Amino acid sequence: MTTHVHSTLLDRLRAGLPDTVLSSDPDVLAGHREDAAPLSPVGVPAALVRAGELGHVRHVLGVAQELGVPVVPQGARTGLSGGANAVDGCVLLSTERMNTIERIDPVEQIAVVRPGVRNADLSRAVRAEGLYYPPDPGSWETSTIGGNVATNAGGMCCVKYGVTADFVRGLEAVLPGGEVVRTGRSTAKGVAGYDLTRLLCGSEGTLAVITEVTLALVPEPETALTAVATFGSVQDAARAVAGVMAAGHRPSLLELLDAPTIRAVNAHRPMGLPEEAAAMLLVQSDRGPLASGDIAAYAKVFGGHGAQEVATADDAAESDMLLEARRLLLPALGDLGSVLVDDVCVPRGRMAELVEGVAALGATSGLVTACSGHAGDGNMHPCVIFDAADPGQVERAREVFAAIMDLGLALGGTITGEHGVGLLKRPWLATELGPVAMRLHREVKRVFDPKGILNPGKVLG
Amino acid sequence: MTTHVHSTLLDRLRAGLPDTVLSSDPDVLAGHREDAAPLSPVGVPAALVRAGELGHVRHVLGVAQELGVPVVPQGARTGLSGGANAVDGCVLLSTERMNTIERIDPVEQIAVVRPGVRNADLSRAVRAEGLYYPPDPGSWETSTIGGNVATNAGGMCCVKYGVTADFVRGLEAVLPGGEVVRTGRSTAKGVAGYDLTRLLCGSEGTLAVITEVTLALVPEPETALTAVATFGSVQDAARAVAGVMAAGHRPSLLELLDAPTIRAVNAHRPMGLPEEAAAMLLVQSDRGPLASGDIAAYAKVFGGHGAQEVATADDAAESDMLLEARRLLLPALGDLGSVLVDDVCVPRGRMAELVEGVAALGATSGLVTACSGHAGDGNMHPCVIFDAADPGQVERAREVFAAIMDLGLALGGTITGEHGVGLLKRPWLATELGPVAMRLHREVKRVFDPKGILNPGKVLG
Repeated sequence: MTTHVHSTLLDRLRAGLPDTVLSSDPDVLAGHREDAAPLSPVGVPAALVRAGELGHVRHVLGVAQELGVPVVPQGARTGLSGGANAVDGCVLLSTERMNTIERIDPVEQIAVVRPGVRNADLSRAVRAEGLYYPPDPGSWETSTIGGNVATNAGGMCCVKYGVTADFVRGLEAVLPGGEVVRTGRSTAKGVAGYDLTRLLCGSEGTLAVITEVTLALVPEPETALTAVATFGSVQDAARAVAGVMAAGHRPSLLELLDAPTIRAVNAHRPMGLPEEAAAMLLVQSDRGPLASGDIAAYAKVFGGHGAQEVATADDAAESDMLLEARRLLLPALGDLGSVLVDDVCVPRGRMAELVEGVAALGATSGLVTACSGHAGDGNMHPCVIFDAADPGQVERAREVFAAIMDLGLALGGTITGEHGVGLLKRPWLATELGPVAMRLHREVKRVFDPKGILNPGKVLG
Repeated sequence: MTTHVHSTLLDRLRAGLPDTVLSSDPDVLAGHREDAAPLSPVGVPAALVRAGELGHVRHVLGVAQELGVPVVPQGARTGLSGGANAVDGCVLLSTERMNTIERIDPVEQIAVVRPGVRNADLSRAVRAEGLYYPPDPGSWETSTIGGNVATNAGGMCCVKYGVTADFVRGLEAVLPGGEVVRTGRSTAKGVAGYDLTRLLCGSEGTLAVITEVTLALVPEPETALTAVATFGSVQDAARAVAGVMAAGHRPSLLELLDAPTIRAVNAHRPMGLPEEAAAMLLVQSDRGPLASGDIAAYAKVFGGHGAQEVATADDAAESDMLLEARRLLLPALGDLGSVLVDDVCVPRGRMAELVEGVAALGATSGLVTACSGHAGDGNMHPCVIFDAADPGQVERAREVFAAIMDLGLALGGTITGEHGVGLLKRPWLATELGPVAMRLHREVKRVFDPKGILNPGKVLG
């Protein structure tokens, strides 16, 4: 960007924004230019706007459209695929300060929130009303609802409750140019017109900037019971997951941790996880009086697939500790080196092949791999551990990461179950979607963003 | 259409289709040219193609695109808004014969079906595997999955389980011109690219023709318990519904029948419904051992809103009978005259105002109105009864129908909760969506159907 264009941009932005909202300080920009994805390109932004209200977002998108300047929407930048990374000369448009819960309505069982509300804050606020907002991405303590919607975030709840998009009823969003569009509804049902709400969910900031979200809530679940099962091989554990679902069950949580993950978690924080096991499953039923029967039924299936031991948590505190252990997966593996987290989702019946394949790729590469995740959904997070200072290891880590996505596709799966495409998985998108769907994607993008200013280079490239 | 164009069309269609698939017999065409919507325009079709396989659909959409001939996709033509009505010179493209259940997969808890499979046939087939496909539109015995997806059909299950689109994981569809696109996935999760699956759901045949559907299933629910509560006013019943939800409950079914509906159902088939009541609520919990506690909790709320009596069904047979009574709503009201069925969905907290408003509109018009429906969703089906042979009554019925939609919008609702826009509600769509969303709709339509041959005049006009 030439200096002239740069100063024009800043002048034009300043004309419609309070001083506290706009920053072009290089240190501030440097602190906001990337999300949590490793090995992804990061550009040099021209400005950061921390929007406090709808008018700020409209102003930025009006000026940017007119000047042809790229805009990169940001939430808490906890994303794992580079979707919030700066591109050169862009305006970083954060909606983190638009963080009010506008209302929680028990009659409609909905919440209306601004995009900067943190998932954990919303979850706690609705619990206080006897309601439940299930989506619980690993980042839930810090990530924002706007970011969760933009990436269609998942979590451990999904096996029973679904993903973020399943709870989004309506949106207010701003289009490039500054026009405001309302999509969807606040009512329980509605089929008037095309589902633009769902089109914006998971569009990773490439179609519009979300400024308000109407979320569906469900009644608080009954008391949950959690159990741990240990296995002599990770393939047995994977087959046990398929077996539970084939028996017609639907646990409220079904996670797999393999041995490298178990050891890393214990090393990160002594949790007493069973290090002698090749894999463990964490399973939960939240059906109150039915839960102990559910756990017994799961245990029976696990036993038929070689489970060594099945132990039920004694109380809510022990159950919370087990879930916390699972949430430590990424920081714990991070103690071993840099971590490239994959996010393939395969049919549950193919999961044993996936974990075998990941182990084989790790062995061949000489890098440490771990293969844990949301097994009940077939959505695993194979991790490749590498030394970021060693170019040879970086190269091999990239190769293993890529081979895992190829394997996921070959098994009938997807390259991303919940993390999004961003920059990191862009090269594989066309393979997954095929040429006709890719053409439709490009044309839909053009409908919303004819000048291509919104998060350019992300998702579609 | 000139005779020359007509014969060219038939020749071109014939060249790629077996004789048994193509018909231009005027009597056959006349029998297939409309759906179940009253007072909607019906054109004169040029041909009917009863596709038996993907290739037939591709051929029709290839020829039609080339010749610029409109195509109207059809399922069982049970729709209530004219979406499947012929337009002049069109090819009626029925997928009713593509009716195979390709597979039911208990490990993935999915079914893969062709569009012509009847909802009831799928529902029964998955029950035999211990699984459950919830969407249950009133037409479920005859309507097809393809039609259910195209209209995003609802039913009585929605209050707990959601609508058809909530169960659609992936689609195969044919675009104008004949290209095949696959959207979505068969895995439990996936966020690669835009949600084109959801965009096609509820698009009423205006974007693509659906040729295969991958559906998510859930485990069969526990034993259900059903109860009936009677009220001295329909407003009390409506407030009781809001009260149940506000108390944090989520019944598996929550339907309201007003006095005109109760009387019509009893007259249609003696069901012993309580004729002395101004309204009744039908409520169900399908949580097995929790159900009796649930029903007691609902009864307590109902009592606080003036319920006269709350009676629990003695057994499954009595429960089925009550649900059957509810399903007779439309045929029963049809005994009284022609019926214009509205489908507004309002916030539950505004439902009492809706039922009051409908009664007032009926009284002013001098026509019989009834106001029953999926109260748990705020999705009511106000019905206007009229004599189709009396032009004055037809005119007044149209006015009341229109005024009910205006009222629904004024109460913060939508013009259609589950029936779709079709032809019947087209004039109100722009009011509900607003100019920005309407422009996006038109442009999205153009992406999929640049020549405007698919179901022209429907939804967007």
